[in-house]
Amino acid sequence: MTPIFIIDRDRVERAIMDLGAIGACAGTGVSRTTFSPEWVAAQELVGQWCRDAGLAVRMDAVGNLWGRAEGSAGGKAIATGSHIDSQTPGGRYDGALGVIAGAIAARAVLEQAGPPKRPIEIVSLCEEEGSRFPSAGFWGSRGIIGTIAPEDPERIVGYDGVTIGEAMRAVGLDPARIPDAARDDLEVFLELHIEQGPMLEQAGTPVGVVTGITGIRELRVVVHGRADHAGARPIDLRQDPMDAAAAMIHAVIGVAKEMGRPAVTTVGRILVEPNFPNIVPERVEFTIDSRNPDPEARRQQYARQDALLREIAEAAGLEMTTEVFGALDPCPCDPEVVRVLEEAARAQNVPVMSMPSGAVHDSQQLAARSRIGMIFVQSKDGRSHTPAEFSAVEHCAQGIEVLAGALYRLAY
Amino acid sequence: MTPIFIIDRDRVERAIMDLGAIGACAGTGVSRTTFSPEWVAAQELVGQWCRDAGLAVRMDAVGNLWGRAEGSAGGKAIATGSHIDSQTPGGRYDGALGVIAGAIAARAVLEQAGPPKRPIEIVSLCEEEGSRFPSAGFWGSRGIIGTIAPEDPERIVGYDGVTIGEAMRAVGLDPARIPDAARDDLEVFLELHIEQGPMLEQAGTPVGVVTGITGIRELRVVVHGRADHAGARPIDLRQDPMDAAAAMIHAVIGVAKEMGRPAVTTVGRILVEPNFPNIVPERVEFTIDSRNPDPEARRQQYARQDALLREIAEAAGLEMTTEVFGALDPCPCDPEVVRVLEEAARAQNVPVMSMPSGAVHDSQQLAARSRIGMIFVQSKDGRSHTPAEFSAVEHCAQGIEVLAGALYRLAY
Repeated sequence: MTPIFIIDRDRVERAIMDLGAIGACAGTGVSRTTFSPEWVAAQELVGQWCRDAGLAVRMDAVGNLWGRAEGSAGGKAIATGSHIDSQTPGGRYDGALGVIAGAIAARAVLEQAGPPKRPIEIVSLCEEEGSRFPSAGFWGSRGIIGTIAPEDPERIVGYDGVTIGEAMRAVGLDPARIPDAARDDLEVFLELHIEQGPMLEQAGTPVGVVTGITGIRELRVVVHGRADHAGARPIDLRQDPMDAAAAMIHAVIGVAKEMGRPAVTTVGRILVEPNFPNIVPERVEFTIDSRNPDPEARRQQYARQDALLREIAEAAGLEMTTEVFGALDPCPCDPEVVRVLEEAARAQNVPVMSMPSGAVHDSQQLAARSRIGMIFVQSKDGRSHTPAEFSAVEHCAQGIEVLAGALYRLAY
Repeated sequence: MTPIFIIDRDRVERAIMDLGAIGACAGTGVSRTTFSPEWVAAQELVGQWCRDAGLAVRMDAVGNLWGRAEGSAGGKAIATGSHIDSQTPGGRYDGALGVIAGAIAARAVLEQAGPPKRPIEIVSLCEEEGSRFPSAGFWGSRGIIGTIAPEDPERIVGYDGVTIGEAMRAVGLDPARIPDAARDDLEVFLELHIEQGPMLEQAGTPVGVVTGITGIRELRVVVHGRADHAGARPIDLRQDPMDAAAAMIHAVIGVAKEMGRPAVTTVGRILVEPNFPNIVPERVEFTIDSRNPDPEARRQQYARQDALLREIAEAAGLEMTTEVFGALDPCPCDPEVVRVLEEAARAQNVPVMSMPSGAVHDSQQLAARSRIGMIFVQSKDGRSHTPAEFSAVEHCAQGIEVLAGALYRLAY
């Protein structure tokens, strides 16, 4: 008979507090950047949790910490985890909760059900956020799928001016060995993560089973105009990039508003030159972050937005350049893994709802080498990347119970 | 019989080059901030020109340099001039040309027509631009009309951290004596200035006679939203200040486009918090510089813009705050002075056209204490506040001929 796993709420709360204390800042905030002393201390704490759970611990060549229980039948592993690096400052939950969940769920399953048939691994991934090395997001998961280029360690520079290669060497890692981190023996990767949005809270549901991860395109748009005196140049003789950029921004956000959920579009960043009140700008640059988990709807969303950008630039008679600086295709979760998660939730008596992920995650990278599934835990007010990030211990524990049930179903 | 004044083109060119050499930068640029060593040297050069023209020279308590020829019949003075401080960098013409014009025109008139009946004064005003002390624009002309507050010298701080009072003391001026700079004995103030716009060039006319100076309102708008994850917060649950700000910017510029000349509206400055591509902004701040020389049209322009701002904020359900940080009422030029300028142009055989000024000028301040008139000289490509600023010597000399003719008509 399939066992029920009851997760101790106090143990969950203690783990959140203990990990949150490493790099604590701004009250309930955390600032823990990859390869920093705080990150080293956090990986050591995770290693201790793994040993307490009876797992064999190692750090791979890229900086991920793994704990492993061998399976009596061998074969590919059932892995779970997330990342412990944070935004600066971030909160106690984004990423960290998935590592805590892995350690606690693995311990519960091993204690209650004994040695598994298939190997179980938990992993604490590094530099998901790119908060120290802005162009090295998903460093740990990219190491596992083997997409780090040989020149990356010396090419990628952090906000502190240090290359990621130097930072690795400072914590005892050899960048030349990065290819050793690649894995082709992961059967399933499960990631528990806070939702970072308001849907579960609004539905009054503690846990979500993710059906797929959104596709994203990050576009940099530059509108070139002509700087002019704000008074002396008649309105009909201007080449005003601000007027055109404003029309573009309102139009591309309007596409997502009209399409409705799950389409989203965000213009979060604008740079204006010269940015003086009484000079018509020479140049306006802005970013468009546009997401949709449905491949066909996403294609239409980008096509409509691109057409509007072109039409507005042409109508204004202004030169416009665009550049894609980030893109990830939508990533469906494995249907069989989704079914296992839903079955585990039913058996564990945890209310869940199905939902897409509007945020991007390590799972999206790892999908290249394993079947993936994700569990969301309700976020208070949908906040994340801020010290105000919060999830109730009860909801965290319910998410871990679903994870434990799924680990059992997949590995025993 | 009324004399004709022929201005020596070489003298004009030499004066432009000599003054432009003081604070020269970036090729044809000038960076000459008020009370700097360059400013002191420039005032000394202007003083020398005045003495060469037979004028008595003094610096007033606020930093303006005056040259004066007494009038045989006494009475209030006929004054002309502009400013020698520049943007950083600006060009050789904005402001400077009006000071050069005053010195050369006064010399020509005095040499050719002898002592005047009414006093003639030329003035080199200080800190029109506010390029060293951003809240002290029109410092010199405000000193003349007596609107500098007693606390201003110690309250107003420059970009270099120095108060304007300290900067005055460093060049030998006593801030306590500022009230002594006030004048109530100016009958007429004539200002020659580059157009800073394209109208004269497009019309193929060297000189403009200004009918009035535009009214301006500078508004700071802050739209308050809620920072959210660019992926996890559904589009319909956002409080996105960027979307609303973009709609507002396009709408308020649209009002000026629809009203047409002479209405203009410029959004030159935006500040976004936190300004990251993947975070819905918390707050978007922008400026609206909106101008119209017609008092009633201006009132309607602002009312329509204010209504649009309110409507868009309300429709988005966002809090908006607005603050006026600069305003000048439209300022008609004195009709009798305009008539004199037009008559002088006809007599001097200089083609002119009537036009409003879309830029603000010292004349707007001085209108509080004297009748004003302005002469515009054609600007190449309408450029100003840049080293690319240029006016042909021929056009400059033609403008000075009109100024000389007007000085004669008013003072003899």
